[in-house]
Amino acid sequence: MADKKLVEAITSMEDDFAQWYTDVVKKAELMDYTSVKGCMVFKPAGYAIWELIQKQMDERFKETGVENVYLPMFIPESLLNKEKDHVEGFAPEVAWVTHGGLNPLQERMCVRPTSETLFCDFYKNDIQSYRDLPKVYNQWCSVVRWEKETRPFLRSREFLWQEGHTAHATAEDAEARTIQMLNLYAEFCEEVLAIPVVKGRKTDKEKFAGAEATYTIEALMHDGKALQSGTSHNFGDGFAKAFGIQFTDKDNTLKYVHQTSWGTTTRLIGAMIMVHGDNSGLVLPPKVAPVQVMIVPIQQKKEGVLDKAYELKSRLLAKGCRVKVDDTDKSPGWKFSEQEMRGIPVRVEIGPKDIEAGKCVLARRDNGEKIECALDAIEETVTKLLDTIQTDMLDKARAHREAHTYVAKNMDEMRKILDTTPGFVKAMWCEDQACEDKIKEEMAATSRCMPFEQEKLSDTCVCCGKPAKKMVYWGRAY
Amino acid sequence: MADKKLVEAITSMEDDFAQWYTDVVKKAELMDYTSVKGCMVFKPAGYAIWELIQKQMDERFKETGVENVYLPMFIPESLLNKEKDHVEGFAPEVAWVTHGGLNPLQERMCVRPTSETLFCDFYKNDIQSYRDLPKVYNQWCSVVRWEKETRPFLRSREFLWQEGHTAHATAEDAEARTIQMLNLYAEFCEEVLAIPVVKGRKTDKEKFAGAEATYTIEALMHDGKALQSGTSHNFGDGFAKAFGIQFTDKDNTLKYVHQTSWGTTTRLIGAMIMVHGDNSGLVLPPKVAPVQVMIVPIQQKKEGVLDKAYELKSRLLAKGCRVKVDDTDKSPGWKFSEQEMRGIPVRVEIGPKDIEAGKCVLARRDNGEKIECALDAIEETVTKLLDTIQTDMLDKARAHREAHTYVAKNMDEMRKILDTTPGFVKAMWCEDQACEDKIKEEMAATSRCMPFEQEKLSDTCVCCGKPAKKMVYWGRAY
Repeated sequence: MADKKLVEAITSMEDDFAQWYTDVVKKAELMDYTSVKGCMVFKPAGYAIWELIQKQMDERFKETGVENVYLPMFIPESLLNKEKDHVEGFAPEVAWVTHGGLNPLQERMCVRPTSETLFCDFYKNDIQSYRDLPKVYNQWCSVVRWEKETRPFLRSREFLWQEGHTAHATAEDAEARTIQMLNLYAEFCEEVLAIPVVKGRKTDKEKFAGAEATYTIEALMHDGKALQSGTSHNFGDGFAKAFGIQFTDKDNTLKYVHQTSWGTTTRLIGAMIMVHGDNSGLVLPPKVAPVQVMIVPIQQKKEGVLDKAYELKSRLLAKGCRVKVDDTDKSPGWKFSEQEMRGIPVRVEIGPKDIEAGKCVLARRDNGEKIECALDAIEETVTKLLDTIQTDMLDKARAHREAHTYVAKNMDEMRKILDTTPGFVKAMWCEDQACEDKIKEEMAATSRCMPFEQEKLSDTCVCCGKPAKKMVYWGRAY
Repeated sequence: MADKKLVEAITSMEDDFAQWYTDVVKKAELMDYTSVKGCMVFKPAGYAIWELIQKQMDERFKETGVENVYLPMFIPESLLNKEKDHVEGFAPEVAWVTHGGLNPLQERMCVRPTSETLFCDFYKNDIQSYRDLPKVYNQWCSVVRWEKETRPFLRSREFLWQEGHTAHATAEDAEARTIQMLNLYAEFCEEVLAIPVVKGRKTDKEKFAGAEATYTIEALMHDGKALQSGTSHNFGDGFAKAFGIQFTDKDNTLKYVHQTSWGTTTRLIGAMIMVHGDNSGLVLPPKVAPVQVMIVPIQQKKEGVLDKAYELKSRLLAKGCRVKVDDTDKSPGWKFSEQEMRGIPVRVEIGPKDIEAGKCVLARRDNGEKIECALDAIEETVTKLLDTIQTDMLDKARAHREAHTYVAKNMDEMRKILDTTPGFVKAMWCEDQACEDKIKEEMAATSRCMPFEQEKLSDTCVCCGKPAKKMVYWGRAY
C-alpha cells in the first residue's frame, strides 16, 4: 500500500485546483522557482518530458518536409517595428538589451518574443525564385515575454517552444500548410499526450498580432478551464509586403510570398498535468513518460529478490521500455508513493513469494488496477499494458471533455454553466466583437475558437439575440 | 566529371585559408550572416550537423549518468557578481537587459555568457544532504558574449553549446568527473568527428575565470593553427563558498560541495570544416553527415534509371543510411559539384549502362576514389565504405597533425617553425607566466596545454633558459 505522507504533501484537487497543480509540479520535481523573477528551472524529470515531446513532434515535422534552423535571439528595434500590427502586439511585453559589454548599443534590441521579423529578414535575401519555395523551417528555442503573473509551464517570462515559419508561392499553399500543421498538432496531442482537442479558428479579437487567420487547438483541463495548446497562423502576404520578400515566378513576374507560422510550447506539459493528474500526483501517458515502468522489489534483502528485479529490468529494456528498479533503502510503501507522485505508468511489485510462484504484480497508475502477471510473460504483458494505458487515458480524457461540454442559448444559461459546472460552452454568435467583449466582461469567459465542425444550435446570438453566424466554443481559460 | 563552376566559386585554401573557410561555409549553405550584428543564422545543412552532434554526444553523456535540465537565460547582476574571478572574466563581454516591457528593471540582468552562477544559485537550495549528491546536470542552449570580431562557427555573439555543471561530496569525485568528461570529449572528437586531439591542462594564464584547474582538448587545423575544442573545469569549493552550497555529510557535519563544469560548442563544426575540408568544399565524416549518400542518376530521363535510383535509395534507407536521390533537372556534373561542396561522403552514380551491367559507381568524397559496385551488393558495400571513410578520415587527420607537430629548444627555433611550417610546437617551460607573455607578444603564439603525456625534451625553458618544469604545446590559435 502506498505511504500516505507523500500524498498528504499535496493539496487535493477538489479543495484547491491551483494549489494542487503547484504542489504536483514541485513534488514530482518537474520544475522549481528561481531567483530570476518570473523564470523557472526545468528539473531533470520535467526536462525529460520535454525531450520526449520534442523528439516525437520533430519526427512528425520532418515527415512533412520541415527543416530545422537556428536564428539569432536578438531583434533590433527597427526590425521589430516593420510590421505595424505585430509590433503593437509584442512591444509592450519584450525585454530590451541596451548595453553590450561596457558600451551602450547604438540601437537597442529585444530578446525574441517570437521570430516572424527575423525569419522575414532572412527570407528576404534567401528567396529569389519559385525554385526556392516553399521554405518550411522550424526552430526549437526559448523566447521571452515580460509577463506580470507567472505559473509553472503555463506562463513564464522565458519559455521553451518550437516556432515554424514558412514561405510559399501561393495563398493556397500557405493555407494548406497552416491547416496541415494544426492537424499535426491535434494528432500529436491525441496520440502522444492523450489529450483530445477542439480544432477551430480564432475570432479576429483573439488572433495573432499580424495574422490574417489564426487556427488553434483547445483542450479542456480537469477543472473545466480551457487551455490553448497550439496555434497555426496564416499571414497572407502582409509580412512579405512589409519586408519586401519577393520571388520571380515561373511566368517571370515578381510576386510576394505567402507566409505561415505555428508554435507549441512547454505549456503542453502543463496541459498534461491538468488533464491526467489526480490526488496522488502526476499521471503520465506512456509515450512521454521518461520512466514507463518502475520495478519495486519487496523484501529486497532476501536472497534473489534484487537479482530477479534486475533481470526483469534487462528483459524490459531489451523490448525498448524505459524502466528502472527502485533499489534504494526506502520502504516499499514510500517507493509506491514516489512512483505514483511522479506519474510512472506501470509499477512492478516483486517479492520472494511472487518469485516462488513465478509471477509478479503490475499496478496501473492511471486507474489503480492491479494485475497478476506470469514472469515468463512480462515483456508482452507490460508492452501491451503500456499501449492499453495510452489508449484508455485518451478515452477517459475525451469522456471528461464530453461530459463538460455544454450548450447555452442565452447569457443566463451561459453564466449558470460557467458558475456551477465549468467547461466548454457551445453557443451561437453574431460575429460582432461587442458581444465577445460583453461576455468577457460579464463572465470572464473568452471565445476559444470557431470550431471546424460547426453546428446550428439556434438562430440567434447568445449575447445580443441578433442573427447568428457562427457556433463558438467559449470558456474560462488559462 | 564535376562541374567546375561551383568549385571556382570558392577560393583555394592555399591562396587564402580564411577566405576558403568563409566560402565553404556559405557555398555549402551551412550558415549565413544576419542583420543582427555579430549573430549568424544556422541554415538547414548546418543545423542538421549540430543535431547529429547533439544526439550522439547526449547519448554518451547519459551513459555516464548526466541528466538534462534548463535554467533561465538571464542572470541578475548581483548573482553574476558573487564570485570575484568569475565576474572579472565575464562582465566586460556580456549583454545587459535593462528594460522589461515599458519599464526599467530594478536590477539589470545579463544574458548568460555561461551559467555557473545560475547553477550555484539553484544547487544552494536543491542540495541538502550527501544523499542529494552527486548532481550531474547539463543543458543544451545558446549563450551570448559580446565579441568584437566574429567568424562563422568559431566566434559569434550568440552561439550554441552544451554546458555541464556538477556538484560532488569530495574533491576526488569532482576531479574524477572533470577528467571523465574531458576523456568523453576526446573520444567523441576522434570517433565521431574524426578529429584527433591533444588532452592536457591549461596554464594558470589560460584557465577559466573562477576555476582551480581547466583541462582542454586541442585540435590542429589544416592550416597549422590550433583550435581549443572543448574544456572541462574543476572549481574545487570556490563557488560553493561564494554561494554557500553546503550539505550534511554522512558524519553529520556540514561541508561545502566540490564543483565542475564542462562545455563544447558549435565551434566543433568549424573544426570539422578546417580539419577535413578541401578545395572542392566540405568533407563530412559519415557519422555527422546529414546526408551520407547522394544517388546521382545519369541520363535520368531514360526509362528505368530513376526507378532504379529510388530502389537503391529504399534499400539503403532500410539499412539505416541517410540517403537522397538528386532527381532535379540539373546536369550530372553540376550535381557532382554540389554533392562535393556539401561534403556528402559517398556518391552513387547510376545510368542505363550501369543498370544493364548490374553495377554502379561509388565515389568517395574524402579521397576521390571510384569503386565499381555490384547492384546486388550495394547495401553491404556502402555501409562498409562509410565505416572505412570514417576511419580513414581520422587516420589522415592524425597523420597531418603528426607531420605538423614540432619540437623547439629555443625561441629562434620556435619562431622559425611558426613562421614557415605552422603547427603545434612542443617546448619546455619554467612555469613562469612572464615567459608565456613573452612568447605571446613576440610570436603571437599561446600555450595550448600542458599535455597529460609529458616528455622531457630538454632541461631548460624554451624562453628564459631556466630549469624547465613542464612540456607545453604552443601554437597560433583560432
